[in-house]
Amino acid sequence: MGVQDAIAEISTFLGQRLTRSKSDLDLHGRSESYFPLTPPDAVAYPETTQEVAQILRACAKAGCPVIGWGTGTSLEGQAQAFQGGISVDFSRMNRVLEIRQQDMDVTVQPGVTRQSLNEELRATGLFFPVDPGANASLGGMASTRASGTTAVRYGTMRENVLGLEVVTAAGEIIRTGTRARKSSSGYDLTSLFVGAEGTLGLITELTLRLHGQPEAISSAVCGFDTMGGAVQAVIDTIQMGVPMARIELMDEASVAAVNAYSGMTLPERPHLLLEFHGSDAGVAEQAETFGLIAAEHGGSGFDWATRAEDRNALWTMRHNAYHAILASRPGTRAVVTDNCVPISRLAEAIEGTQADLEEAGLPGPILGHVGDGNFHAILMFDENDADAVARAKTVSDKMVTRALALGGTATGEHGIGVGKLNYMAREHGGAWQMMGAVKAALDPQNIMNPGKLVPPRN
Amino acid sequence: MGVQDAIAEISTFLGQRLTRSKSDLDLHGRSESYFPLTPPDAVAYPETTQEVAQILRACAKAGCPVIGWGTGTSLEGQAQAFQGGISVDFSRMNRVLEIRQQDMDVTVQPGVTRQSLNEELRATGLFFPVDPGANASLGGMASTRASGTTAVRYGTMRENVLGLEVVTAAGEIIRTGTRARKSSSGYDLTSLFVGAEGTLGLITELTLRLHGQPEAISSAVCGFDTMGGAVQAVIDTIQMGVPMARIELMDEASVAAVNAYSGMTLPERPHLLLEFHGSDAGVAEQAETFGLIAAEHGGSGFDWATRAEDRNALWTMRHNAYHAILASRPGTRAVVTDNCVPISRLAEAIEGTQADLEEAGLPGPILGHVGDGNFHAILMFDENDADAVARAKTVSDKMVTRALALGGTATGEHGIGVGKLNYMAREHGGAWQMMGAVKAALDPQNIMNPGKLVPPRN
Repeated sequence: MGVQDAIAEISTFLGQRLTRSKSDLDLHGRSESYFPLTPPDAVAYPETTQEVAQILRACAKAGCPVIGWGTGTSLEGQAQAFQGGISVDFSRMNRVLEIRQQDMDVTVQPGVTRQSLNEELRATGLFFPVDPGANASLGGMASTRASGTTAVRYGTMRENVLGLEVVTAAGEIIRTGTRARKSSSGYDLTSLFVGAEGTLGLITELTLRLHGQPEAISSAVCGFDTMGGAVQAVIDTIQMGVPMARIELMDEASVAAVNAYSGMTLPERPHLLLEFHGSDAGVAEQAETFGLIAAEHGGSGFDWATRAEDRNALWTMRHNAYHAILASRPGTRAVVTDNCVPISRLAEAIEGTQADLEEAGLPGPILGHVGDGNFHAILMFDENDADAVARAKTVSDKMVTRALALGGTATGEHGIGVGKLNYMAREHGGAWQMMGAVKAALDPQNIMNPGKLVPPRN
Repeated sequence: MGVQDAIAEISTFLGQRLTRSKSDLDLHGRSESYFPLTPPDAVAYPETTQEVAQILRACAKAGCPVIGWGTGTSLEGQAQAFQGGISVDFSRMNRVLEIRQQDMDVTVQPGVTRQSLNEELRATGLFFPVDPGANASLGGMASTRASGTTAVRYGTMRENVLGLEVVTAAGEIIRTGTRARKSSSGYDLTSLFVGAEGTLGLITELTLRLHGQPEAISSAVCGFDTMGGAVQAVIDTIQMGVPMARIELMDEASVAAVNAYSGMTLPERPHLLLEFHGSDAGVAEQAETFGLIAAEHGGSGFDWATRAEDRNALWTMRHNAYHAILASRPGTRAVVTDNCVPISRLAEAIEGTQADLEEAGLPGPILGHVGDGNFHAILMFDENDADAVARAKTVSDKMVTRALALGGTATGEHGIGVGKLNYMAREHGGAWQMMGAVKAALDPQNIMNPGKLVPPRN
C-alpha cells in the first residue's frame, strides 16, 4: 500500500478533481518563502466534508501523507509536500454557510478568504477583524494561528474561532466547540486544532466571532526620536486602557523604503501608525490621549485623520511596506523573521537586531505589531552570494535566541512548519515531547502533514 | 503497589504535610454542591513545584489517583476523590511570584485566590478581571475554565492565561506558552490544560494577563417588561460596540429574593445590571447609549450611578443574590444549573426554563451573564422529598437538552467533573472520544483525577 493506491482510490470518487498535471503539482509545491519546489504526488479538490473524509480514509488505508492547502501564503513551508503525498486544496470549499447577525458569528468553509468574507459581511454592520496582510483562506489562518495588525484589539485566530468541523486522520468527522460564546465543557479541542498546521486533522468548517463595524474610525501617525520612546508611548497608552485597534511600528529603514515607494515624505525615524475604533467622541478622545502620551516620549509630527481617503492612504502604505522594502533592493531575496517578546523588552529586541544587522552588513528594515510585542525584520540578500545567505541565517538565528532569552517566542504569527522546527525544543523543552505524544495519539500513522511542527518520529 | 505505597513514599519527604486526619480528609471530601462526602486517602500540602513532581512520581509508580484541590468551590464534583487517592492541596503554594507592570502580566502559584491577587495588585493600577463569584484559587479557576460577570468584556480564564507550569502524570515539570502576548509556536498546550480539571496534570504556576484599572466606572440598573426585551437590549448594545464590563440579568423571582434579602425595592420584573469601564466621558456616553436602546425595548426605571457606594450596593446585591435566593426558602437544597446558548436564543432558553419550572412546581430563580448567553437557575427542593428531587433533576436535564438543541453547551463556566459527565457524548459526539485519546496519551495509567470529564476507560 502506498501513495499510488491512495491516488487510485481517490480518483474513483473525485474523478478530474484529483489532478496530477505538472502545472498543478508545481503550483502546490511552491512557497512564498525560501523553500525549494516540493510538488505533491497529486492535488485533490474536494467540494464537501464527506469528500474530505473519503480522501482521509483512503490515505489512512494507504499510509499516504495528506497536506492541507488554502492559498499557499504560509511562510514557513507549512503547505509544502516535503514527503510527497496528496495536497488537499480547499479552493472549491469556499462558501459562507450562515451569517447570524444577532449572535455576531458566521460559519464558513475553509477556502473562504478573509477579504471575501468581509465583502459578504459589508451590509450586515459586522466584520471579521483578523488581518495577516495576505488574503489568506480562513482555514489556513486558523491552522497557522494567524493574526496581524488588529490583534492588539480583536485578538488572533485563537480568540476568534468559536468552533470547528474537522476530519480526523482516520477520516472521521468531528465537531469542536459550540456556538455558545464560552464553555467549560471538556478539553478545548478548538484551540488544539487552531495552530496545529494540519498535523492533527483537516478543518472543513469554521464558526468565527464577528465584531461590529465601528461607528467611527480615525488614524494617526507619529514620529519618535528613539525606538525606546516609541515603544514606551505604546506601553503607556495600553496601560491607560486606550482601546487601539491597530498600532504599528516602522523603523527608520522601513520609513525610507515606503517614502521611496509610495511618494511619502515622512522623516526617517521610528514611526507609529495607529487606528482608533469607537464612537465619534470616543475616537477623538483616544487620539488626543495618545497625542499627549507620545509628546512625553519624544513623539512629534503627530497627525490624525478621520477622512476615509487619508486613512486608506496610510494603511495602503503600511500594507505595501513589504513590497516597498523589496523594491528598495531589486533582485534580492528576503527572509521575513517573526519574533514576539514581552512589550517591556521590545525596544531591546529591536535595537539588538539592528546592531546584529549592522555587524552583518545586511539590510533588514523592521516592521512591527508593536502592541503585541511582535516584529518582523525583512532580511535581504543576494541568493547567489553564499556568504550573504549565511549571514542572513545567522542574524535570524540570533533574533530567535534573543527573543527566547527575553521570555518571548520564535514565532508570533507565521508558525513553525519546517522553517522554525529546530527552535521547538529550545522554546518548549519537555512540552514539545508532549506535543509529539498528542500527535501520536491522534495521528498514529503520521500521515497528517508529516515532518512539520512536532518532533520527528523514531 | 497501590495507594498505601504512594502514601508511605510521600510521607518520607512531606512529613507532617501529608495528613490522614479525619477532619482533613472530610474537608477534602466535601463539596459546595449536592455530591456525597468522598474523602481521599490522604491530603498532601506541597510547598514547591519540586514537591508536586515528587508526589506525582510516587503516585505514578504506585498507580495512585491524584486530585488537585484549590479552595473546594467547584460545583460539579471536580475536586472530590470518588476513587480515593491523594488530594493535593495548593493552599501553601499561594505566593504572587512576580508582577510585571509594563507587560501587564503576573506570575502566581496556583493557590493564590483571585481576591488576594487583586489586593496585591491594588497599588499597581492593574487588576485581574475574572470573577466567578467565589473567592476561588487561580489554579482551580484555570482548571475549570471559570469566568463570571466580567467575561463579556475581559474574557474567561481561556483568554487570560498566558502560560503555565504543569507537572505531568509522570512527574515531569513542563512549561506551556511564553510571556509573549501571542504565539504561533506549536500546539496550544496552555488551552489544553485550561479547563482540563486536573485530568492531564497539575498546574503549579500560572502567568496571567492583567488589565488597567479603568479611569472611571459607572453602574446602571434597568427593568424590562419582558425577558425578550431585556435580551434584545443587550444584543443591540453589543452590536453597537458599547464595551460593557458587566451585564447581568435577574428574572422576576431573583428580583423578589434580593428585594427581601437586601431591602431593595426594585419592581418585580426582569432587570439588567450593568457596569461600564472607561474614561469619564466614555462611561457617560456608554450609559446614555444603553439607556436609549433600553427604552426602545420596554426598559424603564433606568438609573445610573458613578458614586462608588451606589455601585458597591448594586454589586453586593448581585453577589449576594445566590444567598438571597436560598434564604427565601429556608431549609431547602439547591442545584445550580449552568447553560450557555447563542444570545439570539437566550430569551427562548430562559422562557422555556420558566415554563418547565412552572410545570414541575419548583422554585428556580434565574440569574444570567447575559452578554455571554450564560444563565443559572437555582433549582430549590426539599432533599427529603424524593419526588421534588426527581423533578429538579428533570428540569435540569430538560435545560441541558434545550441548550444543546439551541446550539449551546451544557456548561458555560462550572465545568464537567462528574455532574455533567453524562452530557459529554451528546454535546461532543466523536470529539469526546478524541478527548479520551488525548487523556490516554498524557496519562496512560489514568491516575490524574480519574472518573472525571473523559469517557470511562474500558
